[in-house]
Amino acid sequence: MYPIHINLSGKPVVVAGGGLVAYRKIKDLLEQDAYVTVVSPEAVEDIQKWHSQKKLEWAERKVRVEDLQEAFLIIAATNSSEVNSWIAAQAKTHQLVNVADQPHLGNFIIPSVVKRGKLVLSVSTSGASPSLSASIKKELQQRYSEDYESYLDFLFECRSIIKKEFPEESRKSLLTKLTDASYIHEADKRNVYKQALISEIQRKYVSKPITE
Amino acid sequence: MYPIHINLSGKPVVVAGGGLVAYRKIKDLLEQDAYVTVVSPEAVEDIQKWHSQKKLEWAERKVRVEDLQEAFLIIAATNSSEVNSWIAAQAKTHQLVNVADQPHLGNFIIPSVVKRGKLVLSVSTSGASPSLSASIKKELQQRYSEDYESYLDFLFECRSIIKKEFPEESRKSLLTKLTDASYIHEADKRNVYKQALISEIQRKYVSKPITE
Repeated sequence: MYPIHINLSGKPVVVAGGGLVAYRKIKDLLEQDAYVTVVSPEAVEDIQKWHSQKKLEWAERKVRVEDLQEAFLIIAATNSSEVNSWIAAQAKTHQLVNVADQPHLGNFIIPSVVKRGKLVLSVSTSGASPSLSASIKKELQQRYSEDYESYLDFLFECRSIIKKEFPEESRKSLLTKLTDASYIHEADKRNVYKQALISEIQRKYVSKPITE
Repeated sequence: MYPIHINLSGKPVVVAGGGLVAYRKIKDLLEQDAYVTVVSPEAVEDIQKWHSQKKLEWAERKVRVEDLQEAFLIIAATNSSEVNSWIAAQAKTHQLVNVADQPHLGNFIIPSVVKRGKLVLSVSTSGASPSLSASIKKELQQRYSEDYESYLDFLFECRSIIKKEFPEESRKSLLTKLTDASYIHEADKRNVYKQALISEIQRKYVSKPITE
């Protein structure tokens, strides 16, 4: 299995099924700004709500082959394993297909995910042990706490400034300083670093007319 | 970004570029049994070797639009950012495209990966900090040591036996026992468990004619 992180923003995604399994996948897909169409005769309350809020399309009927044709990504999550395997068989070779109850019939699986803003971790046991997968996810959530979200924003911002404003020979030492573990949990320390960076840039511009 | 783990076995993958960046991606793709075509006027030694061993196709020239048409997944990794962005622009909306030097032009990124057999972990900082990504990868490699590969095989095997041979009411306690951390590093203990499982099954079959 080859892990990739896809940008699903605006991509047409079809989810067949409207139960709890489908619901959990749809929730993640909406967070990714995918263009979600749910096809299912029935749907749990939240799916109905999202439909009335125009956050997704809901075709209130059984899935047909034409529902699948334009999809970038398909999730077969009906309560019938026959229907799910029929969906996998209809998909074209270039389409991404996940079959919730029979992963081997699709061409991708959805791993457990830990998200801390820009930091994204995934874990899969390739079906060997869903409970190990869940316990590793829990370990990762603890090890990479919520502080990482703002820490990553800080890293992103500083990296952008450094790459834009500093000459190549001084970048490396500036970037290395950022990986000091104390920045992860100490927001104050981050501000001190950022202020120092900004002062350095200001000094550069102020001193320009004199030195040149 | 939406993490998925794809099955690339037999899928047509096109890599534009034959330098070190391309090489590293190709190595991972071959391990996934992807059907790899490299398009590049030049290629590093290993790519040439793989070509002569028929492990991949190598078109020894600049990339053309027709190279991309049938690809399930495209990696633009030439040494020209202009060519790379041209490739991204040529790709059809249903194709998976990664642009090595300008990730935002593609629709997926390739995270750092830790593999222990069936256990697959991925980490990405969405470009905020490649060095943090590398250091988290190192942490994961240490935390989830190579013992996990055989541990996952053990879990997979036992889970298959339990699901096939034991009634639903006794499965849960048997599966829970498996998550005991001592099994991760103690191969002997795993054998004891597996033997107990097999004895249990044998007892079941032996006792059948008497109890029924």
